[in-house]
Amino acid sequence: GRRVEVKRGLTLLEAARVAGVGIRSECGGRGACGKCLIVVEEQKSLSPLSVSETRLLSSDKLKAGYRLACQSVVLGDVTVFVPPESRLEARRILAEGLSRRFELDPAVRSVRVILPRPSLLDTTPDFERLCNALKERGFREVKMEHELLQKLPTILREADWDVEVVLWMDEEVIAVGKGGEEKGVYGASIDIGTSKLVLHLVDLRSGETLSVKTVENPQTVYGEDIISRINYAAFEEGGLRRLQGLVIEAINSLIEEACREAGVKRDRVYEVTVVGNTAMHHIFLGYPPKQLAVAPYVAVIRRSVNVKARQLGIKVHEFANVFVLPNIAGFVGADAVADVLATGIYESDDMSLLIDVGTNSEVFVGNKEDIISCSTPAGSAFEGMHLEHGVKAVTGAIEKIRIDPGNYEVEYETIDGAKPVGICGSAIVDAVAELFKCGLIDERGHFRKNINTKRLRRENGVVKFVVAWKDESATGRDITVSERDIQEILLAKAAIRAGIAVLMKEKKVSEEDLAHLYIAGSFGRYLNPESALLIGLIPDIPLDRISFVGNTAIAGAKMCLLSRSMRKTADELSNRIRYVELTAHPDFRREFMNALFIPHRNLSMYPTVVKRISRVRGA
Amino acid sequence: GRRVEVKRGLTLLEAARVAGVGIRSECGGRGACGKCLIVVEEQKSLSPLSVSETRLLSSDKLKAGYRLACQSVVLGDVTVFVPPESRLEARRILAEGLSRRFELDPAVRSVRVILPRPSLLDTTPDFERLCNALKERGFREVKMEHELLQKLPTILREADWDVEVVLWMDEEVIAVGKGGEEKGVYGASIDIGTSKLVLHLVDLRSGETLSVKTVENPQTVYGEDIISRINYAAFEEGGLRRLQGLVIEAINSLIEEACREAGVKRDRVYEVTVVGNTAMHHIFLGYPPKQLAVAPYVAVIRRSVNVKARQLGIKVHEFANVFVLPNIAGFVGADAVADVLATGIYESDDMSLLIDVGTNSEVFVGNKEDIISCSTPAGSAFEGMHLEHGVKAVTGAIEKIRIDPGNYEVEYETIDGAKPVGICGSAIVDAVAELFKCGLIDERGHFRKNINTKRLRRENGVVKFVVAWKDESATGRDITVSERDIQEILLAKAAIRAGIAVLMKEKKVSEEDLAHLYIAGSFGRYLNPESALLIGLIPDIPLDRISFVGNTAIAGAKMCLLSRSMRKTADELSNRIRYVELTAHPDFRREFMNALFIPHRNLSMYPTVVKRISRVRGA
Ligand code: FES
Ligand code: FES
Repeated sequence: GRRVEVKRGLTLLEAARVAGVGIRSECGGRGACGKCLIVVEEQKSLSPLSVSETRLLSSDKLKAGYRLACQSVVLGDVTVFVPPESRLEARRILAEGLSRRFELDPAVRSVRVILPRPSLLDTTPDFERLCNALKERGFREVKMEHELLQKLPTILREADWDVEVVLWMDEEVIAVGKGGEEKGVYGASIDIGTSKLVLHLVDLRSGETLSVKTVENPQTVYGEDIISRINYAAFEEGGLRRLQGLVIEAINSLIEEACREAGVKRDRVYEVTVVGNTAMHHIFLGYPPKQLAVAPYVAVIRRSVNVKARQLGIKVHEFANVFVLPNIAGFVGADAVADVLATGIYESDDMSLLIDVGTNSEVFVGNKEDIISCSTPAGSAFEGMHLEHGVKAVTGAIEKIRIDPGNYEVEYETIDGAKPVGICGSAIVDAVAELFKCGLIDERGHFRKNINTKRLRRENGVVKFVVAWKDESATGRDITVSERDIQEILLAKAAIRAGIAVLMKEKKVSEEDLAHLYIAGSFGRYLNPESALLIGLIPDIPLDRISFVGNTAIAGAKMCLLSRSMRKTADELSNRIRYVELTAHPDFRREFMNALFIPHRNLSMYPTVVKRISRVRGA
Repeated sequence: GRRVEVKRGLTLLEAARVAGVGIRSECGGRGACGKCLIVVEEQKSLSPLSVSETRLLSSDKLKAGYRLACQSVVLGDVTVFVPPESRLEARRILAEGLSRRFELDPAVRSVRVILPRPSLLDTTPDFERLCNALKERGFREVKMEHELLQKLPTILREADWDVEVVLWMDEEVIAVGKGGEEKGVYGASIDIGTSKLVLHLVDLRSGETLSVKTVENPQTVYGEDIISRINYAAFEEGGLRRLQGLVIEAINSLIEEACREAGVKRDRVYEVTVVGNTAMHHIFLGYPPKQLAVAPYVAVIRRSVNVKARQLGIKVHEFANVFVLPNIAGFVGADAVADVLATGIYESDDMSLLIDVGTNSEVFVGNKEDIISCSTPAGSAFEGMHLEHGVKAVTGAIEKIRIDPGNYEVEYETIDGAKPVGICGSAIVDAVAELFKCGLIDERGHFRKNINTKRLRRENGVVKFVVAWKDESATGRDITVSERDIQEILLAKAAIRAGIAVLMKEKKVSEEDLAHLYIAGSFGRYLNPESALLIGLIPDIPLDRISFVGNTAIAGAKMCLLSRSMRKTADELSNRIRYVELTAHPDFRREFMNALFIPHRNLSMYPTVVKRISRVRGA
């Protein structure tokens, strides 16, 4: 449906690239994969059928006017139809429970160029010779790193003027090598979490993920939480460099492992995209993070950053670019932008609520018109931190708990079915929900006095409920939930719930208006939505509107790796999404106090929960 | 004569800058110099008279509507007249014998910006805060080096949000420092000659040259001529790095000396512009120069190059840019582009001939329609090389020679009037001309047999003419011109003259058409134009059309340092000027043979010379 002027002499595949139309070309245009199918009526305006075309296309297809775009050279005016199976936008990126379509249009692409040999009649300098050949192929003016230019004469002559040129954003030549050797073009996306790093190695031509690697964030030795790392960076001599060095080193190991697993050479990794919360973002880039920890919490930069991998010490291709997603505010970082990008709430008519629970938790409310956000440092309790028997989501972690309302007996499930080692975040939510449902704790999270069960006991003045007896556990100790644990959970849930309430009020959105509730972050993976609703962590909406979308941070980073327009969208989002500073908001304190109740001080906001409780307790 | 929309709240000086109108502002807009005079009728649309204005402007001027642009804030629509004395284009750059006007518009400028302090109500990140403040001042979106961004938070807070911002091309912030301290903005221009380096240190605000330093090119130890240096770079392990290192080291010393002399801090030097022939250009930038020496003589790059000073190891400001002028062809380098730029032949209606005599000599013929060029390796004989008593233009060098046609007695002048040490290029031309005029040599440069003077003698089979007797000389030896010396000179002059002939023929230009003949290069400084004409080095045109324009290479480099539009012009010229490869030209050989005669085989081309000779010899 689009008219495009095309230079004669280009293949249709090249012409489509120039025109910004994505056509699949897994073999890179060598006539081998048969993926670049297109339909043309005016066969006379194209070069005659190539050998590959007669080999790869059935006679029916040929009769119907099918051709391979990479084999058809434009000789005159043509109208081209790109059938759905050849369209690049048909690729999907899959985060757990989430699927978004977008056009595969990575910043890095490689083209093969054959240069005319210099002669006394054509003494065009090497660089201009390359530029001219690229212009012939429809590219604009390009730049080149000084160091690459120094090598260019040797490379061109050793390649005998037949070269593969790797371009970044179609504006910079980042590599020139021998042409006609299929070596692949790869990229990596990295999520720098406070506690965990995740790396995906991606084939930039197909969009496929080749390898996924994770490792604990080695900065953890300088503090589990963000504030202690910021302090270390701010006040210890060389602290920032050290923290930066640790994360870069860890990233280099992940890249090495992923490349080994996928059989990819490190120096064919031409771009890396990175997300992380603001503190991780700053430390990764070597920006002093100090101001993030003191009012008024000012970041060094909001917009996305492009920096050469080697300036950061990341060992991929010498001139590879690192694209770091933009931030929104001092506490709402690139990972949050990635969440919004991956869930697509910014392009939906529907009103959505998005919660990313992590060491810090971010909340978004909005739709394509407008999105507002807030952030709270609460959340690590949901990762099992600060709890006596809290553990991360490791083998043996109790991930589901049910309590019989009649005899208070406990059923639980552990990760990998192993003997229990502790309770992970999702099960803590279950525990609080079940204890409340059975009437073992009151709406303030205190154990009721008059209950008779051997699972309740008092130790050093603290009441505890035994979830698993010591003879069942892997630790040889009873695994319990204490009143103190419950209070930790309630503080965290109240902070998040108050953030949600403030944003919903700001946007004048009621529970009925919320078409979607997305829960991002690894925490969501095991979470029982009924329990989350029961304790009042989320608003009372029908459960079928809730999606657990997993690590949307890495999904968003990968979308930016594979699509230039997603990068633009990310920067637009970082500008557009408004930030509400909760501590400065007049309603926050009251909402927080109200949310310290289970499910809430104002029970009329939780009709579903009230109904359920009365049914259970009535039974 | 130009209507410009202006933001309210800017001073007229700022508004003029945004609009690209150059107004003098020697004090940097502090109301101290009184140079930014402008005339405005609608005084009501401007802020009231400031104290500086009442102090600096006479009551007559005030009555006539004069104001200081830096003191007048725009409040509404105004029409501004910029009187000639305030216009920046009135600045001149002076090469010897050459004066060109252009607008002072350096790539580097510094602005003082006062940023709003962050608060809980304005948590804009540091970088965006700076960008916004610059936008308020009329600047576009800017970039910043990664390493500077890392320091930005500390700089802004130490400066208490009052900063001096140094911008390059209005697109990159290269420095941020404490505001309100007048520290100056400087640049340097460098001519990398095969035998000599010249550096000018320049005040970028006034356009004034503060210091000039020269030094021998230290690469000379690896060969006086270009070819041996190219070979050293191409075939010796590490040769290119060594040659590059030598020239960078020498440049660093020159910068240090110049800065010391001018009392300027090295890190206030924010840009460097560089010219040199193609080989010097390549070696300076670390590009392999090998292909320049083998057919088809292909350069690495034609266009101008911008590269960070620190990538080259040049010790000026950390993020200073180095602008290297473009080349034209394998043998016509950035220095030649500078020659054309400085002489302005590209914008004249008149047809000009431009000759730059050096180790290599370049010739240009053309006007604003079209210019063609050629190059010949001949020329070093004119610098005194390859001659028995040849010396450079040092103290004691004989620079002028006259021979009495009656008794063959010699009058000479030496540089600084010292005892003679040898003969420099210009005097060699004199010598050949005078010997020929007196009939001592024939039209092939051979001494005539039948002349009787004690100044003529034969040594080891070579005839020599004594210019200065040993008791007059500083060397204690007779200073002579031999027949072999004369042949060297004739070979060089024939090559240059043949180049001129080929270009004039190509452009169908006759002697009458040539309105100007520019002789560039230090050689020209002492050259007697009559002698040059007499030996047939230049075409037979009236002497008043000849100008000696000195080191136009450095003049062109300085014009690029001081003017962005000159940079654009340089790149356009490098694209536009056609190059004629003499060795491949069908007429070159014949023209060369013809030019081996004095003044020329075809005497009808030299009527003035014929007349003169017959007058002298007839006398
Ligand atoms: S791109 Fe593979 S056959 Fe055309
Ligand atoms: S710029 Fe000096 S007085 Fe205005």
